[in-house]
Amino acid sequence: MKDVIPEYIPTFDDVLAAHERIAPYIHRTPVLTSSYLNEFVGAELFFKCENFQKAGAFKVRGASNAVFGLSEEMAQNGVATHSSGNHALSLSYAAGRRGIPCHVVMPRTAPQAKKDAVRGYGGIITECEPSTTSREKTFSKVEAETGAEFVHPYNDPRVIAGQGTCSREFMEQTGGVDIMVAPIGGGGMISGTCLTLSHLAPEVQIIAAEPEQADDAYRSFKEGHIIADDAPETIADGLKVPLKDLTWHFVSNHVTDILTASEDEIVDAMKLTWKRMKIVIEASCAVPLATILKNKERFAGKRVGVIITGGNVDLDTLPWIK
Amino acid sequence: MKDVIPEYIPTFDDVLAAHERIAPYIHRTPVLTSSYLNEFVGAELFFKCENFQKAGAFKVRGASNAVFGLSEEMAQNGVATHSSGNHALSLSYAAGRRGIPCHVVMPRTAPQAKKDAVRGYGGIITECEPSTTSREKTFSKVEAETGAEFVHPYNDPRVIAGQGTCSREFMEQTGGVDIMVAPIGGGGMISGTCLTLSHLAPEVQIIAAEPEQADDAYRSFKEGHIIADDAPETIADGLKVPLKDLTWHFVSNHVTDILTASEDEIVDAMKLTWKRMKIVIEASCAVPLATILKNKERFAGKRVGVIITGGNVDLDTLPWIK
Repeated sequence: MKDVIPEYIPTFDDVLAAHERIAPYIHRTPVLTSSYLNEFVGAELFFKCENFQKAGAFKVRGASNAVFGLSEEMAQNGVATHSSGNHALSLSYAAGRRGIPCHVVMPRTAPQAKKDAVRGYGGIITECEPSTTSREKTFSKVEAETGAEFVHPYNDPRVIAGQGTCSREFMEQTGGVDIMVAPIGGGGMISGTCLTLSHLAPEVQIIAAEPEQADDAYRSFKEGHIIADDAPETIADGLKVPLKDLTWHFVSNHVTDILTASEDEIVDAMKLTWKRMKIVIEASCAVPLATILKNKERFAGKRVGVIITGGNVDLDTLPWIK
Repeated sequence: MKDVIPEYIPTFDDVLAAHERIAPYIHRTPVLTSSYLNEFVGAELFFKCENFQKAGAFKVRGASNAVFGLSEEMAQNGVATHSSGNHALSLSYAAGRRGIPCHVVMPRTAPQAKKDAVRGYGGIITECEPSTTSREKTFSKVEAETGAEFVHPYNDPRVIAGQGTCSREFMEQTGGVDIMVAPIGGGGMISGTCLTLSHLAPEVQIIAAEPEQADDAYRSFKEGHIIADDAPETIADGLKVPLKDLTWHFVSNHVTDILTASEDEIVDAMKLTWKRMKIVIEASCAVPLATILKNKERFAGKRVGVIITGGNVDLDTLPWIK
């Protein structure tokens, strides 16, 4: 399979424009450190806390950039997406701030809590059956009926430029690191990170962290082309989706390495972060720390940035409580 | 019963001296806000996050002040206390930083996790039976054998002066508030708050928040003298202890009001804070938010400070998961 060459590759100027555009709608999230974890790992860790971000995740950066970058004419019919995760929340939030509708196609089997959260941010849900066919059919119908602008969760230059604002803030806040670690699912955050760091600090190693049980990016990286898994299962539910042409561009050109962690290692790192750092983080963003703990020698003595991507957790079912 | 007049009442100069003394050993913790909670309450809330403090709680301020204020001679035999909570952790941490021993008398029935945590900070545990008689007898023995300096968890001017550093930072960080709310158990934090605010900003109302099921401070406040409960039961386990002469001095002279919340209200406020603010807080420090949510009209339109006292939670048994 030949990988498609993406039509437009965002540049660092797009990141700068995005940052100015979205600044009123996002938080400049804090960078936290933990002397316990520093000692435990033998490195200096800097956690960029996007769990404190608006709508609880970094995805509001890309979503806001897409929403607020639309012309008045394009914006009038609103935006649309298919997602049952943080992108749906974030796009709903951003559309709400602009005062335009946000249509979200979600499987009817999605947890009620997720539906409630999307509605809580003003999103309009259209339910589909839990299959790709039904989702695509339903989405096409919604798009045709509403004329809404489709905003893909990650394979979209506007979204990637928005996510790139995160590591720009991080560099200002920390003065730089030797290695930056972020989780990889579809690759939106890691692409934004590549985009920004390849411009601001090309010497920084960029490591993507992935669940062993959804290691399609790892295998793609080793093979040199996109391998998409069919419905992988992992506790890190934000990381199940495959790379696409645009994110593959960044991953294949700028990522230093991809490290993986097992389900148990992810849950342990998640619980350790809650226990020691006193912050609520999703399983997906425990994957970087899990890979660091597993490969301490690689990070020893280094300054290491870690992107905590989100904090939207179902507090009623925690993975370490049976 | 006539209340004892305390021997020495700390002054704001003691707070300033404490702050200088402990600065190298504590974090200047951040103040967080939540636009969701602001809207929900109809007030502007500022959360001073002592859950991010060293050893996971504000108590490290008072404990460090006591430990680092000792002369070389007094320090050589170490410090001692009886506590199974954050004070034991904090005193162990501070003693460890100074390189002196910390003796902790704990009931043998205390949870293993708490014993491990104290040992993790270097504390030396002597177990006693779970009764006041045994605790006092065991403690006297430890004190006599070691010559260690007793540091009471709250009824100690050094400890109260240390706790007062928290609201000093808060005032610098926020520029001031109309009302300050902190939980009340033995009264160490609220006394430190009274000490600092009565000097820096006497116009600020100081409200103490207490569990209904351990409302001895509330009843003391209404009756005008200390009423000590015998073993109250509440999820807010940091708040079970009674006022003592020194803390009663501050409570009776400077506290504007004491508000109470039920167990369910406390658990709801705790979960809401985890969910919306993405921070791990103890049940004890959810009591202020619980009382605010219950008395919204009283806080409407005001700038309100809330002290999040600690984040040491047993993640394996959360009160909303049965």
